[in-house]
Amino acid sequence: MTSNLSSPTVSSAGEAALIDRIRRRATVSSAWVTLGIGDDAAVLEPARGALDVLTTDALVEGVHFRRDWTPPRAIGHKALAVNLSDLAAMGATPRAALLNLALPAELPLRDFDELVDGFLTLADAVKMPLVGGNLTRSPGPLMLDVTAVGTAHRRRLLTRSGGRPGDELFLTGSIGAAAAGMRLLADSARRDDLGPVDRECVSRYERPDAQLECGIQIGRNRGASACVDLSDGLGDAARQIAAASHTGVVIEAGLVPLHAGAVAWAERHHLDSLEFSMAGGEDYELLFAIRPRQRRGFLSVAGRCRAAVTRIGRLTTEPGAWLERSGRLEPLVQGFSHF
Amino acid sequence: MTSNLSSPTVSSAGEAALIDRIRRRATVSSAWVTLGIGDDAAVLEPARGALDVLTTDALVEGVHFRRDWTPPRAIGHKALAVNLSDLAAMGATPRAALLNLALPAELPLRDFDELVDGFLTLADAVKMPLVGGNLTRSPGPLMLDVTAVGTAHRRRLLTRSGGRPGDELFLTGSIGAAAAGMRLLADSARRDDLGPVDRECVSRYERPDAQLECGIQIGRNRGASACVDLSDGLGDAARQIAAASHTGVVIEAGLVPLHAGAVAWAERHHLDSLEFSMAGGEDYELLFAIRPRQRRGFLSVAGRCRAAVTRIGRLTTEPGAWLERSGRLEPLVQGFSHF
Repeated sequence: MTSNLSSPTVSSAGEAALIDRIRRRATVSSAWVTLGIGDDAAVLEPARGALDVLTTDALVEGVHFRRDWTPPRAIGHKALAVNLSDLAAMGATPRAALLNLALPAELPLRDFDELVDGFLTLADAVKMPLVGGNLTRSPGPLMLDVTAVGTAHRRRLLTRSGGRPGDELFLTGSIGAAAAGMRLLADSARRDDLGPVDRECVSRYERPDAQLECGIQIGRNRGASACVDLSDGLGDAARQIAAASHTGVVIEAGLVPLHAGAVAWAERHHLDSLEFSMAGGEDYELLFAIRPRQRRGFLSVAGRCRAAVTRIGRLTTEPGAWLERSGRLEPLVQGFSHF
Repeated sequence: MTSNLSSPTVSSAGEAALIDRIRRRATVSSAWVTLGIGDDAAVLEPARGALDVLTTDALVEGVHFRRDWTPPRAIGHKALAVNLSDLAAMGATPRAALLNLALPAELPLRDFDELVDGFLTLADAVKMPLVGGNLTRSPGPLMLDVTAVGTAHRRRLLTRSGGRPGDELFLTGSIGAAAAGMRLLADSARRDDLGPVDRECVSRYERPDAQLECGIQIGRNRGASACVDLSDGLGDAARQIAAASHTGVVIEAGLVPLHAGAVAWAERHHLDSLEFSMAGGEDYELLFAIRPRQRRGFLSVAGRCRAAVTRIGRLTTEPGAWLERSGRLEPLVQGFSHF
């Protein structure tokens, strides 16, 4: 083991010291945490009369991020945000997080601290104590594996499977910004040279915001028949909701809100901006299926939580997943595959 | 992407097909699983009047296992077993598991299937449905990251912190077999050449058994004041229980049960067999602190769940962690560090 005194690494610090650094930072607790970091397992008091909601998602260096593109604080933020997006899509309120880190031995201790800080700053913002986890050395990429625990009442849970033919599809926000942001970083443009719209794209890629409040409020008000998040792109999300609900789905091309940065990037590269934005993924918006009688309530709740929502399509009796463009149906693009 | 028809890889199969292969294998469900694999998150009904117990642990290729030493089925088994050991140490009954896999693109599909089968065979045996997870490509090592969810009643929970000076320490089983097993594989002895004791060591290393029944029964009967599992060695476990309980600890060298294979390996290599066995780790036995008045009940419950338990030391008022050997105290070895 080599040690560089001017820039200490996680390897020179040692496991116990690393755990201690996390513990000192993870100061937020909650009434429902019976046992947090420091025993063989964490212990939580379940929410009374409610269900446990559990999800896990990983960020892998070289697949989901590059350390030379993205600052450690943003990596820590994103590792939690992608899990919050899953809770949001269930209408679940966050309760606790577990953080599993596989660390290259040469990772600077400063990067480790910032990564943990990025994670905990977001966790604190959503009142989600870090209750446990695991540290191990990685002989290859840096990996962050998060398990998020939430809670939702049974009748207020949002699932993918509750859609019916005739439901309208509504999308929060816009799509394509994260895909453009990643490509802007890949083009290795100096950040200082980017205009405000491009900078926002980079920020959406690096530090996505989960639509947590919107998911929770729509769930609480039983304002939607189905919901899914957009981690692997709008095309994939629409297919998922249709498959789980045993319906077909049509997305209306002219209605899909595209981020201005995505449109600009696609045009600069002579690509179809809709296809570019739909295939890109990582937008972490929510896609809702809404019964006609839910429409009014849905829009009212969405307005209260300041979510911009747009009707972009419908669930159909006829099977299949289609994009309706200029009056013609074409097959919806496949989502991002990790293999 | 290259594809070898004679030996398909996870990369040639694709993400959706891999998830489908897991789903087809994960057929066991339970009354408390409201939503399993296939939505944005899993949903569980908490056990009535009980607490949620959550733990996560990872196996990383090149750190915790080597694919050329250990068959995929054993890797899958062990990834769950190390988490079950944490539940056992809390006295928690398993309820559900999440499996997060980072897969090298060239991993043969057959190995993937066997890995999942190894995981699910153990999960089924302990009635623990696989309710969710995540698949991603790994540009480096194969990684398995498991989150185990269990449940325990508040007053039946085992923690590390309940020990008091005067408590006796009892250990399940014996130590050193896993350490010897790993070294036997490292010496690349052909398995067929190994005698029965050495083969058992390899098996303890590759396919550890968590002391689940023992942990649950001792917890239920409130038969111990503190408990910890031995993942990082007996020295580390004893230090953990003492630190959490604010006591000192003395292990009596002459009482520690060593596995015959560990003794044989240490003697062949001119090592002190006790030191070798204590430093090795990966034994996944349980270490209990027992009040004098609990002793009888503890031994009776341990007998009922057919756990061999041995008194090996005591918690003390004087601080520090010591090994008592030939009437003299020497500092207890440090546990295995992952960095």
